[in-house]
Amino acid sequence: MPTIAVVNVNTSTTMTATISAAAQSVAAPDTRIIGVTPTRGPESVESHLEGALSAVGVIEAVRAQSTLGPPVDAWILAGYGDQGREALQELVDGPVVDITEAAAMTAMLLGDLYAVVTTLKRTVPMIRDRLRLAGLLDRCSSITATDLAVLELEADPSATDHAIIAQSREALDNGAEVICLGCGGMAGRARELSGILGAPVVDGVTAAVGLAESLIGQSLSTSRTGTFAKQYGKIITGFPTLDQQRE
Amino acid sequence: MPTIAVVNVNTSTTMTATISAAAQSVAAPDTRIIGVTPTRGPESVESHLEGALSAVGVIEAVRAQSTLGPPVDAWILAGYGDQGREALQELVDGPVVDITEAAAMTAMLLGDLYAVVTTLKRTVPMIRDRLRLAGLLDRCSSITATDLAVLELEADPSATDHAIIAQSREALDNGAEVICLGCGGMAGRARELSGILGAPVVDGVTAAVGLAESLIGQSLSTSRTGTFAKQYGKIITGFPTLDQQRE
Amino acid sequence: MPTIAVVNVNTSTTMTATISAAAQSVAAPDTRIIGVTPTRGPESVESHLEGALSAVGVIEAVRAQSTLGPPVDAWILAGYGDQGREALQELVDGPVVDITEAAAMTAMLLGDLYAVVTTLKRTVPMIRDRLRLAGLLDRCSSITATDLAVLELEADPSATDHAIIAQSREALDNGAEVICLGCGGMAGRARELSGILGAPVVDGVTAAVGLAESLIGQSLSTSRTGTFAKQYGKIITGFPTLDQQRE
Amino acid sequence: MPTIAVVNVNTSTTMTATISAAAQSVAAPDTRIIGVTPTRGPESVESHLEGALSAVGVIEAVRAQSTLGPPVDAWILAGYGDQGREALQELVDGPVVDITEAAAMTAMLLGDLYAVVTTLKRTVPMIRDRLRLAGLLDRCSSITATDLAVLELEADPSATDHAIIAQSREALDNGAEVICLGCGGMAGRARELSGILGAPVVDGVTAAVGLAESLIGQSLSTSRTGTFAKQYGKIITGFPTLDQQRE
Amino acid sequence: MPTIAVVNVNTSTTMTATISAAAQSVAAPDTRIIGVTPTRGPESVESHLEGALSAVGVIEAVRAQSTLGPPVDAWILAGYGDQGREALQELVDGPVVDITEAAAMTAMLLGDLYAVVTTLKRTVPMIRDRLRLAGLLDRCSSITATDLAVLELEADPSATDHAIIAQSREALDNGAEVICLGCGGMAGRARELSGILGAPVVDGVTAAVGLAESLIGQSLSTSRTGTFAKQYGKIITGFPTLDQQRE
Amino acid sequence: MPTIAVVNVNTSTTMTATISAAAQSVAAPDTRIIGVTPTRGPESVESHLEGALSAVGVIEAVRAQSTLGPPVDAWILAGYGDQGREALQELVDGPVVDITEAAAMTAMLLGDLYAVVTTLKRTVPMIRDRLRLAGLLDRCSSITATDLAVLELEADPSATDHAIIAQSREALDNGAEVICLGCGGMAGRARELSGILGAPVVDGVTAAVGLAESLIGQSLSTSRTGTFAKQYGKIITGFPTLDQQRE
Repeated sequence: MPTIAVVNVNTSTTMTATISAAAQSVAAPDTRIIGVTPTRGPESVESHLEGALSAVGVIEAVRAQSTLGPPVDAWILAGYGDQGREALQELVDGPVVDITEAAAMTAMLLGDLYAVVTTLKRTVPMIRDRLRLAGLLDRCSSITATDLAVLELEADPSATDHAIIAQSREALDNGAEVICLGCGGMAGRARELSGILGAPVVDGVTAAVGLAESLIGQSLSTSRTGTFAKQYGKIITGFPTLDQQRE
Repeated sequence: MPTIAVVNVNTSTTMTATISAAAQSVAAPDTRIIGVTPTRGPESVESHLEGALSAVGVIEAVRAQSTLGPPVDAWILAGYGDQGREALQELVDGPVVDITEAAAMTAMLLGDLYAVVTTLKRTVPMIRDRLRLAGLLDRCSSITATDLAVLELEADPSATDHAIIAQSREALDNGAEVICLGCGGMAGRARELSGILGAPVVDGVTAAVGLAESLIGQSLSTSRTGTFAKQYGKIITGFPTLDQQRE
Repeated sequence: MPTIAVVNVNTSTTMTATISAAAQSVAAPDTRIIGVTPTRGPESVESHLEGALSAVGVIEAVRAQSTLGPPVDAWILAGYGDQGREALQELVDGPVVDITEAAAMTAMLLGDLYAVVTTLKRTVPMIRDRLRLAGLLDRCSSITATDLAVLELEADPSATDHAIIAQSREALDNGAEVICLGCGGMAGRARELSGILGAPVVDGVTAAVGLAESLIGQSLSTSRTGTFAKQYGKIITGFPTLDQQRE
Repeated sequence: MPTIAVVNVNTSTTMTATISAAAQSVAAPDTRIIGVTPTRGPESVESHLEGALSAVGVIEAVRAQSTLGPPVDAWILAGYGDQGREALQELVDGPVVDITEAAAMTAMLLGDLYAVVTTLKRTVPMIRDRLRLAGLLDRCSSITATDLAVLELEADPSATDHAIIAQSREALDNGAEVICLGCGGMAGRARELSGILGAPVVDGVTAAVGLAESLIGQSLSTSRTGTFAKQYGKIITGFPTLDQQRE
Repeated sequence: MPTIAVVNVNTSTTMTATISAAAQSVAAPDTRIIGVTPTRGPESVESHLEGALSAVGVIEAVRAQSTLGPPVDAWILAGYGDQGREALQELVDGPVVDITEAAAMTAMLLGDLYAVVTTLKRTVPMIRDRLRLAGLLDRCSSITATDLAVLELEADPSATDHAIIAQSREALDNGAEVICLGCGGMAGRARELSGILGAPVVDGVTAAVGLAESLIGQSLSTSRTGTFAKQYGKIITGFPTLDQQRE
Repeated sequence: MPTIAVVNVNTSTTMTATISAAAQSVAAPDTRIIGVTPTRGPESVESHLEGALSAVGVIEAVRAQSTLGPPVDAWILAGYGDQGREALQELVDGPVVDITEAAAMTAMLLGDLYAVVTTLKRTVPMIRDRLRLAGLLDRCSSITATDLAVLELEADPSATDHAIIAQSREALDNGAEVICLGCGGMAGRARELSGILGAPVVDGVTAAVGLAESLIGQSLSTSRTGTFAKQYGKIITGFPTLDQQRE
């Protein structure tokens, strides 16, 4: 039974539940989904500073999960535009799929240009930069914001849908043919929104599950020949679960 | 039971068999794989001219399959660097996954830069152009040729492996961290070569199966809002199965 | 007497006549213009699927012309944004000039940025992709559509001019300094529109004639050292005039 | 008296001393240089994982310095290719200068193309990505590694110089006209190496001091209109000095 | 006492005074600023033709200054978007800083994207091209014109401020986070405009002073290993002060 | 009778003769070629400084020719990689064709990638920058130097051919399919070198003649809607033939 751990980037357990449910909804019958919630870090990630703190919370939670939990075959990093995918690739044995990248790849299979609709305006450059480094920005026609904070998404689902639809329509009018939901917290809405918009809407979490299952099925994992090679041991102060790597 | 049609781009039924077997090897237990072979076109595709002829053979074979065969949920275009994915997206209802793009996306999940190892030198620009249009070229460090023609791949498997390994090692030395097998006819070799090279080797056919299953599971298909919108009917001369679209 | 064949990409003989007349209008006195019309394919090309079918019709028509007709010194492919130039370069001995590329090059000699005004919105990505692969997209400020289908261009010339002028004015307001007429069927209108707009308007067909004559005068033709090298013989099924290349 | 804090990214106080000395050597007479060393994090940063841990150590150290220490007018982040500059820009009031970017900018004032010579091969993509996001990669001809770990730089200065010179000479032969020392730990060697190589050698730390002084002199600091706007308060768990922002 | 020569690109001595005053306002106490005014060339530079004439005027003035004046440690070329920086780098021993590049670099330290607000629309491509060649265009979100000619800037300061503010506000609304004043003649207004706009405003002249002082402090100057190597002597007709280089 | 002026960028009348002869060799029978030699400027252009001086010599010579000579229908700027095309576009009524751009465009019609073989290594960045600004660099695989100065080209034709052939062969081995002769002084050698190399060799001068004739035949000239608009009069000191534009 393949096991996929879906790692939330903030400390909200309700968001982990939302994300895990979305993941489970598309997973193969024999795939087990485990939700992981950091015990440290911000309650939501909407800035570079919060992203940096979140990355460490994610790393520690993944280290704990991989040490203490059942074997995990693939990891999904469920933060949109956040840093940390590369660090996880170094930390764990199995493959790591970032939802920002999974959404973009999936969208690129479905139409000419795609657009991302996200939360606050200040996160737009963060998402753009993640896509640029991932080499997936060329076919992105726009990244725009609903001006709803992450924690507002759950508070008023109807207003959230309304805001996403408005931004999506504008993006479609300007040449996008596919919409990516630009926040882990938007998980679970793609099918309904797709019906309303008349265009494919991609949920990064469900997109990532397909990619993770595919990598497991092909026995593929992170390359260790270059930047993600296993590191020699080194003294790391103040992070007890990550230190003592040098023997 | 989801059904995926794997479309060979040349008229070789043994190559269709190779490709279908690779697809089946990673497909979910309940996924049905159907191999499709064009009845018209070149015995192998290694030039732009052959690519253009192949595209029509592929279109006709897919039209026949979708009209006469069982319902197909997703289509895989099993030509590396060939034209035709966009035309198929217009022709069929379900999503279409090109193995060139599927391989690149999968490779980008596994390492920093990827390289493509293909057949003849003259096909290098064709693959590069496909990746560029797909927006997937940024993280490609090289596309190099084994100087083995498509039809030679099957003739001498040992020489083929040897040639692929040599090109792959050079690519890895020059910064690639993942290798893509740059020809549908190389399907089925990835796992063994990966062991030899000590780096992930991606087979576009198996990569495409995972993406196709993922799209089916998410009920996602080609966007009809823009360049792949349904076309109004039009007189098409000399292609009887494709004409009579105008009513 | 140099001979240039101007190849229409659809089956409309009146469009071939329009294109040929435009070509003749700028050709040197001793240049002979031959119009070539495919006997197979769509009546107009406005989708990827039609483009693929058209490419084969073009290939067969060019093969017939080069086998049965008088010697041709250069070929012009008169489809805007269509595939097929590279295949023709492999098929014939003389140079091949695509009107999409000829228009862009000519425009780039005349102003800082150029814009393309074309037919239907769905063809915009096709033209953009042709220009990108040709390495001529950097100085293109926009590609916009009149929303007139190819076959409507001839039906109502006055409405056509009006639509082209409206799109052109918007493009000029947004930084373009030169306009390219983005459809072979718009041939013959450049001079008049240029007068109305007060900016250079480039007709791809007349632009291509100049480039073709220039290549003939310099005795230059397609390089055979790489991707356009002569191919070894190969069995090609279902295309009788193109098979039997293997001896 | 302007005050510039130079923030080391690892926990090595000897490296902080090296960096501070380099900074002081070019600072204006009335500029005060304060060295800041994280109390948490890795002893050297050579991987994405270490980079993520280092970022938090840097953030905490900067927060402590800005809360408890004398007023700081500008901050220098002395890690080459590390993450964290954007987070610091959100955290502190004064401007933040990253040595990777400062070195590149300075190099671009001195010659056509520049090259970076760094420590381990695995850090090359990290530096490339930093430069790409900073929009400073276009004129970078190469980033190459000496294969010396950060902690080895100090252990054998002569071997270090030898390795840097060898990589630099190869870069100059391949078109670079300026060399950037790609590690904070290489600070203080630029002048001597420049004499040996006959080409400008840029030390990111000294380059950053000039930029920091310039920003102070112009009263310029981080823009708060977009991605670096002040964030509303939010619960942040497990980072006591950074929480309690919400009032 | 370090000496920096600030070279105006037009023949207006009042503009030289404005520029020199701006430079002096941020220079270190012991830095000497020398204003240089060409005796030949246009009264303002707003076209490529004027730029070419200006370049020669600048070269002659710099040659005269460096031959007859006191030693100069660094040169600032105070034309926004003008040609000539590379020629000066060949002509003089010390480093040369172009204000277009200095402004862009400084802006990139302060926010995600920057915008340039300049004089006439026709100069926009000139500035864009300078930034592109300098490798500094990636993070430029727009270059827009106030439609005020260079010589009008001084005539009506209030109208000038008004026009700059209007363009800047539009740029900030469209994603820019920092504004660059895109004309040497706008020098001296940055601080006031920054206060009005609530965003950093960068004056290329003051930005260049900081970079020039930084290069002097680091003993860095133009690389002579490649394109800016010292040239062998050559007969140059009609430019007496520049000829007789061949011995 | 169409008249094309071919403008040499240096003061060598023998080079003007070489260039004019090459131009005449491909011109239509009724085209008149006029060679123009600057009376001021360097004897050859191999640096940015010489390029700046040359630009003014070219401007003055073209102004004299257009004022005193017979009407000219199109101008060819026969310097490879030199500045000045844009200034000429503002100065004269007819179109201006730069041989660097003409060569690249022509090469792009003939093969996948092209290479430039030029004179001294220091001119490589100048040519690269010209091609980048012209938007023609994407398909350039290399620009390499023979290490022969411009004035050495004529001195020893056999050594020149030998050096060009060596560089060209290396470029072809590395993926180029077409060679551009990267110096006006190499004019007249293309046909012979093409025979030796077995690949198309493009002479920028003959390429430019074809483009110039084509523009004349289409009645196309420089757009006056933007950056090349006619300038209002302005005082220009020290260039008597160019002043007095203000009325």
